[in-house]
Amino acid sequence: MLISHLGEVELIKKISRQFPLQEKGVRVGIGDDAAVLSPLTDAGRLTLVTKDILVEGVHFLSPLITPYQLGRKALAVNISDIAAMGGVPRHLVTAVGFPLETELKKVEEIYRGMGDLCRTFSINLIGGDTVKSPEGIIISVTLLGEVEEDCLLLRSGAKPGDLLGVTGELGSSAAGLDLLLEGSREEKREVEDYTSWFQILTKFHLEPPLRLQEARRIARSHLVTSMIDLSDGIMKDLGEISRASQVGAKVYLDRVPLSSALKKASSFLGKDPLDYALGGGEDYELLFTFKGGDKEKIEELAKGFQIPVSIIGEITPPEEGIKYLDKEGKERNFSRKGYTHF
Amino acid sequence: MLISHLGEVELIKKISRQFPLQEKGVRVGIGDDAAVLSPLTDAGRLTLVTKDILVEGVHFLSPLITPYQLGRKALAVNISDIAAMGGVPRHLVTAVGFPLETELKKVEEIYRGMGDLCRTFSINLIGGDTVKSPEGIIISVTLLGEVEEDCLLLRSGAKPGDLLGVTGELGSSAAGLDLLLEGSREEKREVEDYTSWFQILTKFHLEPPLRLQEARRIARSHLVTSMIDLSDGIMKDLGEISRASQVGAKVYLDRVPLSSALKKASSFLGKDPLDYALGGGEDYELLFTFKGGDKEKIEELAKGFQIPVSIIGEITPPEEGIKYLDKEGKERNFSRKGYTHF
Repeated sequence: MLISHLGEVELIKKISRQFPLQEKGVRVGIGDDAAVLSPLTDAGRLTLVTKDILVEGVHFLSPLITPYQLGRKALAVNISDIAAMGGVPRHLVTAVGFPLETELKKVEEIYRGMGDLCRTFSINLIGGDTVKSPEGIIISVTLLGEVEEDCLLLRSGAKPGDLLGVTGELGSSAAGLDLLLEGSREEKREVEDYTSWFQILTKFHLEPPLRLQEARRIARSHLVTSMIDLSDGIMKDLGEISRASQVGAKVYLDRVPLSSALKKASSFLGKDPLDYALGGGEDYELLFTFKGGDKEKIEELAKGFQIPVSIIGEITPPEEGIKYLDKEGKERNFSRKGYTHF
Repeated sequence: MLISHLGEVELIKKISRQFPLQEKGVRVGIGDDAAVLSPLTDAGRLTLVTKDILVEGVHFLSPLITPYQLGRKALAVNISDIAAMGGVPRHLVTAVGFPLETELKKVEEIYRGMGDLCRTFSINLIGGDTVKSPEGIIISVTLLGEVEEDCLLLRSGAKPGDLLGVTGELGSSAAGLDLLLEGSREEKREVEDYTSWFQILTKFHLEPPLRLQEARRIARSHLVTSMIDLSDGIMKDLGEISRASQVGAKVYLDRVPLSSALKKASSFLGKDPLDYALGGGEDYELLFTFKGGDKEKIEELAKGFQIPVSIIGEITPPEEGIKYLDKEGKERNFSRKGYTHF
């Protein structure tokens, strides 16, 4: 069935049913001029607000991602933003544009992808807008969250002498995207373990993992001086910390965490894995800084994580800029510089 | 200059400069993973959240509306939603998609349109997303506001016996749009006062007035039982009150406020002015209900307004449905039924 046959009122009803409200803090959800929330934050807490928009043909290509994955990812990238501030997500508002000839099933799958994350993280869908789009799907997500005053982590707290940590392994998402764009090549059947690392890397791109739990533990440890999520690639996102904190940084390339899947894919694609790890976007891992003297405490904290934490560099005075150094201490440059929109 | 030549970082800097933060409640505005607000609402107040998305070719046609008017309108329709709840707007988050070949001037004008309303109503732009769009401009606006608990006005409070009031005069915006779409016709030069009513009605469409002050006075009077803003036309929006409050309604057609400009335009366009007034969208006037016994108090309150308030009907039991009655008490049907998206 096409959504143009179902009509707007029925479509919104169908969507709402997938999102039962999870708490009494929502006085009025979908259905009035605006959603109404009880005071969002108690004393000692701050409200967080983030917003992203995904446009078909720019941020995603329909044949490469399922509608379920698309819905999940549209919300995931915003949860990641809230996590990177040290907070927890609370309330979701969406605005979605669909071409008239969109299959109802597709719309339902997009919302099912969002709905699964809402259940996992106790997020309430409280409102939004559903409109027609002349061409392609448009998904705009606004996410409200909250954070205790003393857990708030900005990009601006890094100081020279701090060390630079990162969760997980980098570059998987960008390599996964290249594999998807590559499509089926003849030689791939002969490559060892192709299917296994293809699946690992493309899944990182299509269903990025969420580091909310790790971010919360990092925030509650009070050990971290700045944090950002890696959405545009470390080269650009470390640049954001550098700009906001007015510091420089050294990154030791031999410490940048690379998965064996990434190494195999890079060799298959004829690329340098560091190009993916430093310049590739959408890893949604956490990049953070902490005082040099807290190194052992951070390592202790990281033992409780299900994913590795790597200390990949240090913060320097601003005049030193950002340097990527190889084992011999020689500076290297990379072709990718992180994702830019224009 | 094209925005693709300016680059994303410079573009965001340029935009931010147009929106100086107006208060200390914003801890972190544009520039981190998420905006950070001090507890948004004090004790006794509720948080309001509304979101709309405007897509070129669906919600607006570029040659008919200036970029300034477009930016203003994108925010205005959300302010109207907050006003219709009895509240005041506080914080703005935008996500905008532009084709790469967009002139920088156009982007600046869109944000200037939003910025002027922000200054008028002390609204802070606290964040957002700027992306490229494959075709046409996309503007998504999320607006946060607040309302005192006892001033909150929902769609669901109407009771049989209540009277139905409306601010301003209806149908101007829809007639204005038809005049814009009509373009230049030969005969118009011969029509009396054409320029004058063309200007009045098209201005209603392009720069809809905001009834925030009136809405606040209505909310603080504690006389009103339900309220909605007329965004999709009275036929659809009264239907929303009827559905949410589970009531019926009678509308007396001879009491529906029609401007002389609307009457002249309707005659020129060969249309029934009531068709515009009842079925046309985007008036952004307030439709509200109040107890029959409070009629004089409402009339007294309305004396303080710069615009007329008309009492156009009454609320009936749900089984009576919604009826539009002429002077003789005969029911009438109209061709337009209000704006639907799919």
